Amino acid sequence: MSILVIGSVALDSVETPFGKRDDILGGSATFFSITASFFNKVNIVATVGEDFPKQYVTLLKNKKIGLDGLTVSKGKTFRWKGRYDFDLNTAHTISTHLNVFKDFDPCVPEHLRKPEFLFLANIDPDLQYKVLQQVKRPKLVACDSMNYWITTKKRSLERLLKKVDILLLNDAEARQFSGESNLIKAAQRVISYGPKAVVIKRGEYGVIYFSKNAHFIAPAYLLEKIYDPTGAGDTFAGGMVGYISRAKTINETTIRKGIIYGSIMASFTVEDFSVNRLLRISQRDIESRFNHFKKITKF
Amino acid sequence: MSILVIGSVALDSVETPFGKRDDILGGSATFFSITASFFNKVNIVATVGEDFPKQYVTLLKNKKIGLDGLTVSKGKTFRWKGRYDFDLNTAHTISTHLNVFKDFDPCVPEHLRKPEFLFLANIDPDLQYKVLQQVKRPKLVACDSMNYWITTKKRSLERLLKKVDILLLNDAEARQFSGESNLIKAAQRVISYGPKAVVIKRGEYGVIYFSKNAHFIAPAYLLEKIYDPTGAGDTFAGGMVGYISRAKTINETTIRKGIIYGSIMASFTVEDFSVNRLLRISQRDIESRFNHFKKITKF
Repeated sequence: MSILVIGSVALDSVETPFGKRDDILGGSATFFSITASFFNKVNIVATVGEDFPKQYVTLLKNKKIGLDGLTVSKGKTFRWKGRYDFDLNTAHTISTHLNVFKDFDPCVPEHLRKPEFLFLANIDPDLQYKVLQQVKRPKLVACDSMNYWITTKKRSLERLLKKVDILLLNDAEARQFSGESNLIKAAQRVISYGPKAVVIKRGEYGVIYFSKNAHFIAPAYLLEKIYDPTGAGDTFAGGMVGYISRAKTINETTIRKGIIYGSIMASFTVEDFSVNRLLRISQRDIESRFNHFKKITKF
Repeated sequence: MSILVIGSVALDSVETPFGKRDDILGGSATFFSITASFFNKVNIVATVGEDFPKQYVTLLKNKKIGLDGLTVSKGKTFRWKGRYDFDLNTAHTISTHLNVFKDFDPCVPEHLRKPEFLFLANIDPDLQYKVLQQVKRPKLVACDSMNYWITTKKRSLERLLKKVDILLLNDAEARQFSGESNLIKAAQRVISYGPKAVVIKRGEYGVIYFSKNAHFIAPAYLLEKIYDPTGAGDTFAGGMVGYISRAKTINETTIRKGIIYGSIMASFTVEDFSVNRLLRISQRDIESRFNHFKKITKF
């Protein structure tokens, strides 16, 4: 039950009220794959520049992440610079340098073209579509997007959505895409474009999962300290897809549990910069927090 | 297991994106008591003016609410005028006319001085304290307050909190009272003033209940249409205290279930202006929504 992810592997420079870090490991495929690696085998399709630090390659290898689809292109690695104020829910982008990502033309290596689970992390929907065309139809296709693509490439996104099982968006994006301010209506509108389900991420307030006729609502795990929310969404996706792939069955029960594992994994990510916290946790920490989550939501 | 509530019975003029109503039945004691009446016998301590419409008195009587503590004072009834924009989470007060409430000196009638459950709705903490002194120590004292009293009467509030079991605040108020932005820390700071527990209301995002060593987190019931959020907080309290009083036992389990009933009741209130929706629902509607809530949060 292998997982394939297409997305970015990047160098982030981040400033939060709790500190500042430069050129730390980031990128959607990075957060997703390190998280999903706790549950299953993951392969990455992405590109980095010649300046991408060797120790980060080693780090990914140590997590047994398949890097056959990670190419090194001439030029510099994709860089994102951002800042969070005390309201840690909103990332303020200071600069984005696409660098080698600008001409990224994803090519899934031959031996990775039959993934059972595919996560299309947030990149140009045309590239996401291209990857979909290269692989045998997976059991589950999950997909992330963002306001930028909704504004600039709505048609491409619509074409893509016909082939997606679960779309992940934050609440503002769901409202923007659908033109509906109410989340129930927004979700139903999104679903009318093709996906079987939509997961609406509400940051510190948790997530709502909508399928055609039902929904599931989960609060976020409450934390005493949040250091850096970067990567929370991709970590969430990694926990969700990772858990479902390990469970080997895709149904309402495994999706719901996957959503809780996604929330739990995201709760670890935000407790430190970059993927640092994820590198320090064990399976036992994950299970322990999952059980605590059960306890604090039971009635 | 009788319930006593001290608070306001008022006439509200409300404007939301979905309509406008003048001099409709409002007030914290009103929302609380009508809600709690679904679960148990409730008595009100409050005052209205000579202009208070007879049909509203009839309405309360029809809900079997005890009105021996509702006095009619010379002058006009307390009036609140407010407006909600599309973000229905924030009430914008246009005017507040205390009228007869200005000189309100609550006196609990002799035969009501042994309530088993007491709800001190949001009024001057000195008046809340005065009521507490008039009654035999109830099994449970729940108390609401607001930013205005935290700013102007923090000392009085602190004196009161020593005698309160459960304090209800919204998230901004909890942060203001405690000086802590993180809710876990804010709650523990509030608890250090005396209450055994604090319920932090997060509007459309649900509630978190904190006791000294644990917490319980519940999302809000998701609605397709919200017409008027006025009274949601007092309705929540009415459902919570009402359920606990009916359950006859105060423990972690009944408090958690009470919180869900509170959320459910609030979800009805906001579906129409004033208490209109509450007047149209049956026990069956409440149980049905409670069961649905279980279903949409289970994992």
